[in-house]
Amino acid sequence: MNNFEFYNPVKIEFGKGAVEKLRELIPAGSKVMITYGGGSIKSNGVYSDVCKALEGFSYTEFGGIEPNPTYETLMQAVEKARAFGVTFLLAVGGGSVLDGTKFIAAAIPFEGDPWTILKRAAVKTAIPMGTVLTLPATGSEMNSGAVISRKETKEKFAFSTPLTFPVFSILDPEYTYSLPTNQIVNGTVDAFIHVMEQYLTYPSAALVQDYWAEGLLKALVDLGPKALANPTDYDVRSNLMWAATMALNGIIAVGVPQDWATHMIGHELTALHGLAHGETLAIVYPAMMEVMFEQKKEKMAQYAERVWGITEGGADERARKSIAKTEEFFKSLGIKTHLKEYGIGDESFETICTRFTERRWVKMGERGELTPELVLEVLKKSL
Amino acid sequence: MNNFEFYNPVKIEFGKGAVEKLRELIPAGSKVMITYGGGSIKSNGVYSDVCKALEGFSYTEFGGIEPNPTYETLMQAVEKARAFGVTFLLAVGGGSVLDGTKFIAAAIPFEGDPWTILKRAAVKTAIPMGTVLTLPATGSEMNSGAVISRKETKEKFAFSTPLTFPVFSILDPEYTYSLPTNQIVNGTVDAFIHVMEQYLTYPSAALVQDYWAEGLLKALVDLGPKALANPTDYDVRSNLMWAATMALNGIIAVGVPQDWATHMIGHELTALHGLAHGETLAIVYPAMMEVMFEQKKEKMAQYAERVWGITEGGADERARKSIAKTEEFFKSLGIKTHLKEYGIGDESFETICTRFTERRWVKMGERGELTPELVLEVLKKSL
Repeated sequence: MNNFEFYNPVKIEFGKGAVEKLRELIPAGSKVMITYGGGSIKSNGVYSDVCKALEGFSYTEFGGIEPNPTYETLMQAVEKARAFGVTFLLAVGGGSVLDGTKFIAAAIPFEGDPWTILKRAAVKTAIPMGTVLTLPATGSEMNSGAVISRKETKEKFAFSTPLTFPVFSILDPEYTYSLPTNQIVNGTVDAFIHVMEQYLTYPSAALVQDYWAEGLLKALVDLGPKALANPTDYDVRSNLMWAATMALNGIIAVGVPQDWATHMIGHELTALHGLAHGETLAIVYPAMMEVMFEQKKEKMAQYAERVWGITEGGADERARKSIAKTEEFFKSLGIKTHLKEYGIGDESFETICTRFTERRWVKMGERGELTPELVLEVLKKSL
Repeated sequence: MNNFEFYNPVKIEFGKGAVEKLRELIPAGSKVMITYGGGSIKSNGVYSDVCKALEGFSYTEFGGIEPNPTYETLMQAVEKARAFGVTFLLAVGGGSVLDGTKFIAAAIPFEGDPWTILKRAAVKTAIPMGTVLTLPATGSEMNSGAVISRKETKEKFAFSTPLTFPVFSILDPEYTYSLPTNQIVNGTVDAFIHVMEQYLTYPSAALVQDYWAEGLLKALVDLGPKALANPTDYDVRSNLMWAATMALNGIIAVGVPQDWATHMIGHELTALHGLAHGETLAIVYPAMMEVMFEQKKEKMAQYAERVWGITEGGADERARKSIAKTEEFFKSLGIKTHLKEYGIGDESFETICTRFTERRWVKMGERGELTPELVLEVLKKSL
């Protein structure tokens, strides 16, 4: 096992009616800004629950944070928050709203151009934030990371600092009942690939991390279809929500190699073609498994056996079969697994490979072996 | 899934040489008291590592915290700490030293009789503490709980408050190389039963928690014998250490029923007969599985299948077989599973049952169904 540090101070309030805890969780006397997305929280009752819980607090709001939240939109929120003198941010929504709010939290007190936060400028302080989660997917509710896009330059970058851990996150599975089908699908795929990025690398003698990753994968395989079939099954939705949170709160990543190349390529496809994050992952991941087969096959055989119950054949054969199983699982959820199904060809491949060539300092893959040439192969297989 | 709160702010520094982080982790200018047990840290190099890392700090020390730390000993430490003006406690040792130090941390600023902390008096403030763990077992390094004994009255009680979470814990698997065999055995059994107390109850539709508990159990079954066979295998010791920490940091307990009756009975056997904690658990647990068979058999069948690979026979038959498997596992580690093997008879049974009768407010078992009469049955089967 590799040496590691683990730290995750997010307080989780989980279950029906958990929103009522808001009043105790936000420091008395706070000047609050509620942040949210396209406004679905106003039609499904979440917004009014939150406002009720905030009675007595001084608060304002900022709506319209888009999927793949943009620097341009978020800077409007930063201006509004500065003018209001915000001392606490409350993000109500899914991963995009939460990620966007982490950026707002870091940008409000930032001296200099906040875009540099995405280019690794040091964040010295941030406004504290809490979240009310409405979409099981990204794990943003229990980690300190965020991914932000810039319209102007069609770029998408991640940042993370211990200062942007939410102080608390409220997870009420009933808040996910009204989600459209495609968001449950994309969320399930996102959580699944989060686990894979931390698991499907090479054997590293980490028993607990492996069992826990495999447990999450098996849970997601079980829950995804059920969540689609019966959107108001509390058992299913609560398990899906918790699995997605556990998939990216750091606990399965400790002491093991990590990949994340599929996410990086996916971010490019989102930035350049506007595909949803989950959609890019379902396309890129099976291709990644093919291209990096030799590097990943040992762990892939374990994945085949423990997650998919494939026990026949040699290790390589089992590993191969797991690629098909993975793609079949995505398809069974109704998500596309090839670019051409979205009418996308190879028009952006050169740009993407050039970008990775320019960012040679970014380690691609668990061993740093995914060269821009191999990225091109992955993209071609994704067609 | 039941509603729950999860919060665990302990920072873990894991791996070879992690003790070097001490210097950054303890606030500059702290007045530190190092607490430890019987002195093995002075012969195995841990003490000198810690002192080296503390160069420049003002510190004192308190040694001699015994297994099943006593109120009597700990109050001496409290006096010493008060006299020195301690602002930070550093516990160096296993669960007893860590638990004892949590009590010291709460008792130093406590107004009134600190023994009442064990009787549910409110703890309003505590001295911050960090830990350097030397024994994988109790999970005390990543939770806020402690179990304290009182010689005078032969009592043993637990307490817990968010104020006694360690600020940090340093886990260096190499520090466990020099542990005597029986401590590794007791620690493995302790961690195993911690998981069982949170897992072997009744089905509650918690997929992730079940998979994670089963993962820990499988890991412990695998690791225990290996840790005994080769004490300096880093892979084995690091996995054992991490499994024991994960077994009781709260993460597998969220949203599920919990038992803990075996621990409560075990504490009585320790208090009255001086058996080590792990020794009591290996005796009581198989008996508990027998006596509470009807109440636990559904989950027990799942345990049989997923942890022990028992797939033949009906559910009840599989469940029955898992009791034997569990006891065999304990025996294979070289730990005794009956009171008579220690020369103990039924002389304390009446006292124990009377104590539980007097403490009717304590819920015994996951459904509160373990009456004093059933406790007596468990004790008789433990003979």
